[in-house]
Parts: sequence; structure tokens; C-alpha cells
Amino acid sequence: MKNISKNVLTQVIKPRNPESYKGNYGKVLIIAGSTLFGGAAILCSSAAIASGAGLVTVATTPEKFTALNVKIPEAMTLDYHHKKELLNAIHNNSVIAIGPGLGTSSIAKGLVKTVLENTTAKQTVIFDASALTVIAEEKFILDTPSNIIMTPHQGEWQRLSNLDIPNQTVANNLQKLQELNSKSVLVLKKHFSEIYYQDQILKIAAGNPGMATGGMGDTLTGIIAGFVGQFGYSVQTISAALLIHSTIADKINQKEYVVLPTKVIDKLPKYMSKYSSRSSK
Amino acid sequence: MKNISKNVLTQVIKPRNPESYKGNYGKVLIIAGSTLFGGAAILCSSAAIASGAGLVTVATTPEKFTALNVKIPEAMTLDYHHKKELLNAIHNNSVIAIGPGLGTSSIAKGLVKTVLENTTAKQTVIFDASALTVIAEEKFILDTPSNIIMTPHQGEWQRLSNLDIPNQTVANNLQKLQELNSKSVLVLKKHFSEIYYQDQILKIAAGNPGMATGGMGDTLTGIIAGFVGQFGYSVQTISAALLIHSTIADKINQKEYVVLPTKVIDKLPKYMSKYSSRSSK
Amino acid sequence: MKNISKNVLTQVIKPRNPESYKGNYGKVLIIAGSTLFGGAAILCSSAAIASGAGLVTVATTPEKFTALNVKIPEAMTLDYHHKKELLNAIHNNSVIAIGPGLGTSSIAKGLVKTVLENTTAKQTVIFDASALTVIAEEKFILDTPSNIIMTPHQGEWQRLSNLDIPNQTVANNLQKLQELNSKSVLVLKKHFSEIYYQDQILKIAAGNPGMATGGMGDTLTGIIAGFVGQFGYSVQTISAALLIHSTIADKINQKEYVVLPTKVIDKLPKYMSKYSSRSSK
Amino acid sequence: MKNISKNVLTQVIKPRNPESYKGNYGKVLIIAGSTLFGGAAILCSSAAIASGAGLVTVATTPEKFTALNVKIPEAMTLDYHHKKELLNAIHNNSVIAIGPGLGTSSIAKGLVKTVLENTTAKQTVIFDASALTVIAEEKFILDTPSNIIMTPHQGEWQRLSNLDIPNQTVANNLQKLQELNSKSVLVLKKHFSEIYYQDQILKIAAGNPGMATGGMGDTLTGIIAGFVGQFGYSVQTISAALLIHSTIADKINQKEYVVLPTKVIDKLPKYMSKYSSRSSK
Repeated sequence: MKNISKNVLTQVIKPRNPESYKGNYGKVLIIAGSTLFGGAAILCSSAAIASGAGLVTVATTPEKFTALNVKIPEAMTLDYHHKKELLNAIHNNSVIAIGPGLGTSSIAKGLVKTVLENTTAKQTVIFDASALTVIAEEKFILDTPSNIIMTPHQGEWQRLSNLDIPNQTVANNLQKLQELNSKSVLVLKKHFSEIYYQDQILKIAAGNPGMATGGMGDTLTGIIAGFVGQFGYSVQTISAALLIHSTIADKINQKEYVVLPTKVIDKLPKYMSKYSSRSSK
Repeated sequence: MKNISKNVLTQVIKPRNPESYKGNYGKVLIIAGSTLFGGAAILCSSAAIASGAGLVTVATTPEKFTALNVKIPEAMTLDYHHKKELLNAIHNNSVIAIGPGLGTSSIAKGLVKTVLENTTAKQTVIFDASALTVIAEEKFILDTPSNIIMTPHQGEWQRLSNLDIPNQTVANNLQKLQELNSKSVLVLKKHFSEIYYQDQILKIAAGNPGMATGGMGDTLTGIIAGFVGQFGYSVQTISAALLIHSTIADKINQKEYVVLPTKVIDKLPKYMSKYSSRSSK
Repeated sequence: MKNISKNVLTQVIKPRNPESYKGNYGKVLIIAGSTLFGGAAILCSSAAIASGAGLVTVATTPEKFTALNVKIPEAMTLDYHHKKELLNAIHNNSVIAIGPGLGTSSIAKGLVKTVLENTTAKQTVIFDASALTVIAEEKFILDTPSNIIMTPHQGEWQRLSNLDIPNQTVANNLQKLQELNSKSVLVLKKHFSEIYYQDQILKIAAGNPGMATGGMGDTLTGIIAGFVGQFGYSVQTISAALLIHSTIADKINQKEYVVLPTKVIDKLPKYMSKYSSRSSK
Repeated sequence: MKNISKNVLTQVIKPRNPESYKGNYGKVLIIAGSTLFGGAAILCSSAAIASGAGLVTVATTPEKFTALNVKIPEAMTLDYHHKKELLNAIHNNSVIAIGPGLGTSSIAKGLVKTVLENTTAKQTVIFDASALTVIAEEKFILDTPSNIIMTPHQGEWQRLSNLDIPNQTVANNLQKLQELNSKSVLVLKKHFSEIYYQDQILKIAAGNPGMATGGMGDTLTGIIAGFVGQFGYSVQTISAALLIHSTIADKINQKEYVVLPTKVIDKLPKYMSKYSSRSSK
């Protein structure tokens, strides 16, 4: 297992082409939120936008439109109960993140199924949080031809892999991932999170316990979505997303006991600028 | 084609007369927003207010009143489904901006038509975003006697002009503009945006690819509305609006990878003060 | 006519008694807001709280509760359609401000009438904005035994006094005020606003044209309410409220072209601290 | 009576174990808010999250979900009218705070009763504000086996103890507390607040009259909940919560006349970091 190199940030976060447009920086669809979990969709979409995604649409329950409009006026919204509009959005976006605050209702199950059945080889799908629980509970087969990223914490990975935490060894994790979908990337969120992809295994040597607070995972998912939208699907892109998330959080944690997700999001444009100018040299 | 001169900012942004009132700085009506696109109305009206518009009313769907009240308590609201109140507002405002987040529903079409049929030679109408798509789709004739400003990006201009992007040459653009409405101003948003008005063609030598993010156009429309409300309808005023928008964004982009529209809006009062004090000397 | 002395700030804004409670700093009821004018209630109540009012309740239409909770969680709310609860609130608060964003509907008229009929000699009532228009239109007699403050701009004063603006001379204003209610205070908002009370006439030598923006008057009303709640009803208290409002706005205007009401509100606690420590010496 | 020592902050606020998770920092359920009192739930839950609570759920009326999502996207929500879901939440959380903005309706009474009847010896329950009034009015017996913290101000303590303020002597308070529940902690909020627990009596030598503003008590309750969730139930933990609340407020009050609760909340992560790094030495 190798550590993610700090250089990955300058390698991934390229300066933008002066002549470029919103469409060049990814169309991201975030399927998230439910009546009782409204904040997750806000944090995830805010992170996607602050990390530079060109266009972000949040498919959620319409009760959440007002809060989204207030917190992230840059995002568009969609009512995920409308199957036809949702299918259009699935077809028209390059990156789809599903799960934050989605819950495990029958509606949530239908949404995960719809994504699995309607995404293509040109798209990337990120399964996070409730979506992973739904996949585990419903024993859904991950047979979409799209690129897949899964971002479980250890408890969600246990549900998905049937490996209890002591048995979540590198070898076991690799084997289970092969069984689930041999082409997908697993981001296992824990103290020193790990990335698994085929025979590559990477570990992040950053992060801090001030990040142990609600919403931190939703934020990471939004950054991964934004990064894949801009920089393409690769282990390197995903590594950079994890590293900038933890690097910013470590900086905040030097002065703040708990690292609030909203503060990480606020600092994304500045940190990305810093690494992008280094890469231009 | 000439570049817009930096001097236009000090020429346009005049120090205010000490004895003056809200009514001296323009009454701006923004017809914007729909169920799925709530943020655009917020960004556009926030930009109008931060750029100094005396009184701003947002005609939108009432589901969006709460988000508007939170984000921009300085603005008044109106339900655009109420024809009589809308007509009153159209008659009572000096500048009308229509389009951000409006969508292309039958309601949106009716609103564009109502504006075309009910504005007078003393008023300025800015057609933006969805309003331009509606005009193209419905083949509406731009026969209002009001001053007209159109602010398409290249895709919207293609729909309006039937010129595909490679054919959007200066000569072709000029000719199409003459056909659409010979007295109107075209602001063609692109890398180095262009302003067309009769025989004048100006180009802005500012802007950056960090601006390639959702909501940036809505913000520009709000600034144009605020500037016309205060400084009068002229190519010079519109040039100044474009230039301050890009100048602020360029400053932000020196330190931030993506330029969030809300940050541009926040900085408007400071930048306007800077240029206005220079003009007073 | 005398200018308001700068000393009034240090004279009025006394350091607080260490052993004191919310109840010592005034109970303020703000009757404000309506479907289309939601921001005024937010600005007015935010200003009251930031200026130190002990307890602030906003009586408004319940559609506005969410926006108020977000922007000013320190305030309580009330549905002004419920007569009994409203009467309780009128009886239990020491300062009542009515008018910002209230509109001139039959409900608004009923609210003004209820306040006129149910306030007592121990209370102060501030009539602002729509409430003044309602009084003028309905020819309501100002026969409440409470202390009265009226805060019209010149147009509202014209409606109330039947004096057109050129005829709004000191002598005429004084006479009309005597006719309306001989014990009340008139704050005439204009370039260099004026305060009239019996034989006293004061003028404020502060303020700037950057304040010519929507919501600035609602903010002043909130400050007056907060100041009367804490420092008692007097011409001196009202003068201090006007002066701190303009002093802060002048400071902001040195660097910002338009002075947004929300920025004035944010700075109240710091400026009050500054003047209060001077007064303690 | 002893003063709370400044050292309590460094003793209580321990640096976090690098290998730790949200679940290690407390699961906090806040039962708060009602139609007319929406802000209290926001302030209380924001304070709990900013003070480091691992997971915070707010049980409230669903009208308040939008405001909560906007102001504190890190929190989850629950509709407290749903008995089954509420009982689940009561069972699944380690700390339960009930009362801020709850009101004294029959629903509020039912909620207090539900908490009293369904909490266990492993849990801590904080009764604040309206919950204390309900207990007094309904003469509820505090016979839950859970740890109890009561946080009345003097008026609420009068209702609960039948001691009018002049009779709220140390001896009387101690005796009444024994009668109510001999194992519970009383936090009596006043100028120099006092903590009573069995034979211990502590006094806080911090705080200022700028704190005499609405919402300051709701904020304290959130901090106590967050601290007990992380650092365990003890008089020392509660003392640290009170002290950091007043210490931050005193710092703000050096420059601000009134201390807004939201500003205290914003500064929690920085102040906790400061004391935690001292404790690590």
C-alpha cells in the first residue's frame, strides 16, 4: 500500500484553458436528500460547486428546494419523484452522485435502481451513504457499464461486503471489491482512508479527528464529483479529491477543535488555486 | 472592433449627488426564477442591489419568496402569475430584466410576450437566458419601443440568430442584430465578450476561465440592470457593467480557482466606490 | 434648528449594569411584513436585536417565519392574524414598531387600528412606512395615550400632512405635527433628516447618498425601537438612534458605493461599544 | 461556594484520539422549537455542533426543517409529532436536551413526559426553558433514572422551586434540588451563574451584561449537550461548558455592546482548540 503523494494535487488540478465554458467542467447530478436529511444535499452540492464543477443539478424532494436555493443559488434543482425528468437528467449529466441523506425508503431504493439501470459507459456514478446501504440491503448487482466509485465508511462497507471491521484487511477488501464490480473504485473512509482499484491500493496520510462530525462525508462526495467532472475519472483524480479535503481540514484543525464541513467547502477555491498555479510552472 | 477602455468605469460610475433619493437610482423589475431554477433570481437581484439600484422588485413564483427574503431582504417580491399586478409593475419600473431561471414553460412564454407588448420608449428591457430561448422558439418579434439589451451566450445566440458558432462573425452578428431589432444592444457572452450596437462593436479584454460556472450570467444581468437604472441606457453604461463584472472576477481568480458569483456580488460596492472616487477628481 | 450633537451618542449609550437581565433592555414588538414585502420585517427586527433590545417579537404573516428564523434566530414570532395573541403581545411589550413592509391591505389597516386602540401611556409606538400611509388614507386619529414616534420620508409626510414637499417648511411641519398629536415626535427622513418635538427641532448633520437604497428606513426603525427599549423614550434617545445609523453608514460609504442595510446592522454592536466606553469615563 | 477554576477548560477539553469516529463524540438529540419559537432550536443545535458533538438530531415541528437545513446543514431532523420515531431517537441518543422554544402546549407537555418515561441510567437529559415551565406547571416528578441537568434562569427556578428570587439562597436552592431529584445538577442562570450538585456548589466568575439578549440560554444548553456528549456527564464537564460560553462572550463584549448568540457559536471551535492544546502539554 502506497501513500497518496502530495504531488497528486498539482498533477490533477490543472490551470484552466482561457477559452473554455461551463460545459467543459462537468455536468454533475447529485441525487440526495429526503425529508429528515436535508443538510447532506446542501453540503454535497456546495462542495461540488466550490470545487469547480461547471453545472450542478440536485435531484431531491421539493421540500428542500428553498434551503438549496438559499445556501447554494448556483445549483439547479429537480424533483426526484418525477421519473421522466430524472431520466433526462441522468442521461444529460456526466457525473452522478447518489446517496447523501437519501435514506432507505422505497423511493430511495427506486432511485438507486434507476441509476444502476440507466447509466452508460461514458458516465461516472458515485455511490455514497444511504445508496450503499440500499445496495447492501437489496442485494443490487452493480452491473451498470458506467465508471463506479463507492465511498463507504467502515460500517457501510461491512454491510456491503459482509466483512466485519477487524476482517476489513487489504486482501479481503480487494477480493470483495472484485466480487462487487471488478472495474470500480472503492474509497474506504476511516482513519487514514484507503483507495482500492484493481491492483492499486493507496492510503491517505492526512486527516484529523476534528473531522469526526456529521456531514464531512457528504462534503467529500461533492468534491469527488466536482473533480471527476473537471479532471476525468481516474484513481489520480479521486486521490486528489481526498487529499485536498483532508489537507484543508488539517489546516483548519490547527486552529479549530472541530472541523465544520462548511468551512472546508469555503476554502476549496483558494486551495485549488494554490495547487493549480504550482502545476502551471 | 475596439477594446472597452478601463476609463469607462470612472466615466460611468459617477459620485452620487448628496441630495438624492432611492427613486433617483432606478426602479428595477427582475422577472426571473421558476420552480426548478430558484437561484438565478437570487443572484440577479442581489447583483442589481449590490450595484446600487434604488429599488428592486423580483417577479417570480411565490415558492421562491422565502429564499429571496433570506438572501436579499432589500428586494421586494411579486407573484408573476398575477397579470394585473405584473402589468402595474411593468409600468412602474424603469428597467426590466427578464429571463434568469425562467425556463421555457407556457408561463414563461406568456411573461416574455407581456413584456414585449407592454413596455414603452422610456424603459429599458434586458432579455437574458430563458427569455432569449423563448424568443427564438416562439419567433417573437422584438417590436417593443423600449430600449433593448440582449445578453445571450453563444448557444443562445445560435438559437436566436440561426448562426452556428463558427459563423458568429462580426459581420454576421451585426446583420442578424439589425434584422432582430436595429436599435437594440447585443451583449454576446463568450471568451472576451462582445457588445454590438448599430455600427459600434466593442470587445472586453478581461475575464477568466474561473468564471465558467453556473450563475455567472445571471449576475452580469443584475449588474447591467443596476447600472442602467442609475447611469442611464447607453453602450458606455453596458460596457462599464461588463467590465466591472470581469474586473472583480479577475481579481478573485488571482487567488481562487473557481469564481463564485456570490463573491463577485459581495465585492461590487467596494469596487464601484474605488472607480467612483477616481471619477470625482 | 440645531444640529444633533455627536455627544448624544456617549450620553445615551450607557454602559450596562453588570447585574441586569433581558427584561431590563426592553421588550420590543415589531408588526411588519406581508406576502410581497418580507425583507422589511427581517431588517427591522435584525436592527432592533443588534442594537441591544432585550427581547424582540415579530408579528407578521406566518409565511415569513422561516426567513425570520434563518436570518434572526434571536427573534420570536407571532401570527398577526390571531387577534387574541396579538393583543396579548401589544399589552406585554414596552415598545411597538408598526409598518415596515406591512402594505395597505385591510389586514394592515386593522393592525394599525388595533395598535391605536390598545396601547397605553407606558408604551412607545413607532409608526413607520405603510402604517403612516394607512393613517393618512384612513384619516385615523392619533389618540392613543402612548408615546408616539412617526418616521415618514418626505412622500409619506406629504400624505400625512397634506404638505407637498416644497411646503414642508419647519413652521408648517411643526404646526401639522401639533394638529396630528401634540405630544408625538416626528422624524422626517430626508437629506439631513429632522426631528420635531414640541418646540424642539433638531437636524442631523450626517448621512450620505449611498444610503439611498431599499430597506434603509426599516433598519432605522429597528434601531429606534431598540434604543427606546433600552434607554427610554426621549428626543435624545431618538437623536442617538438616527446619529448612530448615519455614522455607521458614513463610515461604510467611505469604501462602498452603496450602503447595504445589512452591513449597517452588522456594525451596530461594535459602534455602540465604542460610544458606550467613552460615556463610562 | 467556590468559583469555577479556569483550569477546568484545559482539564475537560481533551485533545481527540487520532483514531476516532463521529460515534465517539456523542449522539445528541435536541427536542426544541415550535411554530412561534423557531430560532431557539437553531441556536441550540448550532452550539452543540460547533462545540464538537459527533451527531446531532433536532426533533421539532416540520415547519422548521427548512430553516434548520439552511443554518445548520450538519444536523439531522425529526418530526416530534411521530411518537414511534421519537422513541427510537430517544433510545438511540446518549444526550437529550429538551426545552428551547418548545412552548407549553399539550404537545410540549407530552414530549417532556415521553422523555421522563423513556430515558435510562446511561443517558443524560438536560431540561431547559419551556421544559422546566412544563415540569413546574404539570408537577411532573423527575423520576427518570437518567442523569439530569436543569438549566433554569431565576424566573424558571422560581416556578420550579416555589422560591421567589430573594429566597433563592444557597441553602434553599440545595434543599429544593434534593426534593426535586437528589442526583441531578442544577445550573441556575443569573449574574454569576451557580451550579449545584449534591454538596458541591460552584459559581462562575465570568459573564457580562451584553449577554442579556434572547437566545443566549439556548446556546448554553447546546454547549452543555455537546460537552456531555464528548467529555461525559460530570460537574466538571458542565462547569467547562458554562465557562467557555461566558469566556467567549466576555471576549466579544470587549468590542461589542450586545453579545449575539450566533457570534459566540462561531467562536467555539477556535476557543476549544486553544484550551485543548494547552491540556495536551
